[in-house]
Amino acid sequence: MNEKVRLAPVGLGRWARVLARGALRGDVIELYSCYSRSEEKRKAFQEEFGIPRSAATYEELLADPDLEGVIVTTPNDTHRQVIVQALEAGKAVYTDKPIAHTLEDAAAIKEAVERSGLAFAVGHSARRLGGHRVMKEWIESGRIGRISLAEANFSNERGLELNPDTWRWYADKSPGGTLIQLGVHHADTLQYLLGPVVAVSAHARRLYTAAEVPDAVMCILEFESGALGYLGCGWASPGVYQMRLQGTEANLMYDLDFTHWDESHQADRWSTLVSQAYGESVRPPVEIPPTDMFREQLEEFALAIRGRATVEVGADEAIRALAVVHAALRSSDRRGAAVEVGELMQEVGAKI
Amino acid sequence: MNEKVRLAPVGLGRWARVLARGALRGDVIELYSCYSRSEEKRKAFQEEFGIPRSAATYEELLADPDLEGVIVTTPNDTHRQVIVQALEAGKAVYTDKPIAHTLEDAAAIKEAVERSGLAFAVGHSARRLGGHRVMKEWIESGRIGRISLAEANFSNERGLELNPDTWRWYADKSPGGTLIQLGVHHADTLQYLLGPVVAVSAHARRLYTAAEVPDAVMCILEFESGALGYLGCGWASPGVYQMRLQGTEANLMYDLDFTHWDESHQADRWSTLVSQAYGESVRPPVEIPPTDMFREQLEEFALAIRGRATVEVGADEAIRALAVVHAALRSSDRRGAAVEVGELMQEVGAKI
Repeated sequence: MNEKVRLAPVGLGRWARVLARGALRGDVIELYSCYSRSEEKRKAFQEEFGIPRSAATYEELLADPDLEGVIVTTPNDTHRQVIVQALEAGKAVYTDKPIAHTLEDAAAIKEAVERSGLAFAVGHSARRLGGHRVMKEWIESGRIGRISLAEANFSNERGLELNPDTWRWYADKSPGGTLIQLGVHHADTLQYLLGPVVAVSAHARRLYTAAEVPDAVMCILEFESGALGYLGCGWASPGVYQMRLQGTEANLMYDLDFTHWDESHQADRWSTLVSQAYGESVRPPVEIPPTDMFREQLEEFALAIRGRATVEVGADEAIRALAVVHAALRSSDRRGAAVEVGELMQEVGAKI
Repeated sequence: MNEKVRLAPVGLGRWARVLARGALRGDVIELYSCYSRSEEKRKAFQEEFGIPRSAATYEELLADPDLEGVIVTTPNDTHRQVIVQALEAGKAVYTDKPIAHTLEDAAAIKEAVERSGLAFAVGHSARRLGGHRVMKEWIESGRIGRISLAEANFSNERGLELNPDTWRWYADKSPGGTLIQLGVHHADTLQYLLGPVVAVSAHARRLYTAAEVPDAVMCILEFESGALGYLGCGWASPGVYQMRLQGTEANLMYDLDFTHWDESHQADRWSTLVSQAYGESVRPPVEIPPTDMFREQLEEFALAIRGRATVEVGADEAIRALAVVHAALRSSDRRGAAVEVGELMQEVGAKI
């Protein structure tokens, strides 16, 4: 590439930093500008990452003809406005997951993406972890056989730390709590591995968090393939990131040490993937190819702007993941009765 | 003890052998006699375990005044008749899990036990595994904190091996398939650890087995405490025996190598229990005290006959475990809608 792709982080909190570090591990992206409503945050961010400029208003940022795209890490309930505005200004958009907090907003974003014809990517990074890539290979090659059960858990202690100053405290901004913040990753990865989820049965509970949102969620996913999936999410215990696939030929168990999540180029080193055959006590470790999920997804997005790559997780995949969250919450309101993903899609007029 | 307790295995299949080996690892039990309808099986069993006598009919066995109790491993759907007949003949009863295949039969067994005043024990052995005993200590001492999520899985390949000659093939004899044969263990252990389950949401599927029964089951358990439980059971993959508890102070992950299940005095050696604290990458192994679940439960039963021990798992505990199975199956028929355990209990007039 002769010239780096010029991107600007929007919303300059903790997660913008994680992504900026990911982008700067490669040589595809130039952090060209940045934007936050707070001047103090803009200055600190520019300084930390050596970014040559920032914009005082979002309009000013989007008016810069040399800017090619934005990296959105603003609160979930602001995604629609921030994303649609960027697309209408002709800028490509990468947004952190979930695509939005509601399916209505997600459907509106999808429409805006299609109208714009611009590159659009959603940060469902977890499917890019080396362990999941290997799982996908084992499924596609038939090595794991036919899968009956897929179980996943993503948990940490965030629910015990929340306070009313953070948007994640509020049910209208972050519906589902641990499910929309953590579980939505597995909701994407499980569908990447096993195909579409058609219905969800779930129970969501507020147990030990002071916030308005659930800190204990369990979902059973019905896949189109016939397989059953389980998704557990907690927000009131030490961190868990785990997935097990049970196949007619083998099992695969993946376990990632969540304390190293932010440094995605090291995540594989803190992961274990083991396989299990019939009648064998030894569970041989499976080699995990090195990956760097945050860098890779941002570079793919950047290259897609230039027509040199295809975005792996766009609006459709992200809506499928978000639909699992909302089907689960509705099911929980109905005490576990299965809620069809198609029912929710129809309500917001989304076709995927 | 001056004199060993005189017991007789009834139903002389594979599981009778596992239990006989367990009983003979100690010096509390004398295998005094045995019974199966097949003379060939009786002779082979007598020879294998050095049992001095056998009975040609069940009536003959129960008529022996020196026999103190029976060890029942006949098919689940015969438990009621076999157990009630023994109790009415004045013999104490140990039965393999589940207590029966239906709650109706279980309630009838409970009534017969109460009428008889005799010792009665059900082989929910798994709660006696060293790992689960340690989990219980961590819960009672507060070391794990308050539990939000408890996840368990018990799976093996049995569903792929079944044929119409075995009773486990049939839905009317073994309703729930993998759930009633394997999952019922965790249904007991989870309630031993976390208290009563009040309702169950579940999906059960027949995916890859040729038999009439499910080989893939996922259940969400609502505990009276507020915690959520997950119970996954497969019958179409390599064996899994796993449980994770997520507490506000720590997590505990227990993993047992199922290939050594039958030799219960060695099961702990093939188990790992690790704890997890906040922000720590190291997951220290927790020492598991040596146990021998099959021997221990049989010796406890034998001593209870002599008034020297109390049975840990009697009719009430076993009915609670079986109720989870039947609540799950009914919930699956209702596509996941929660089924109250109390509703099922009322139907069969069981109070626990």
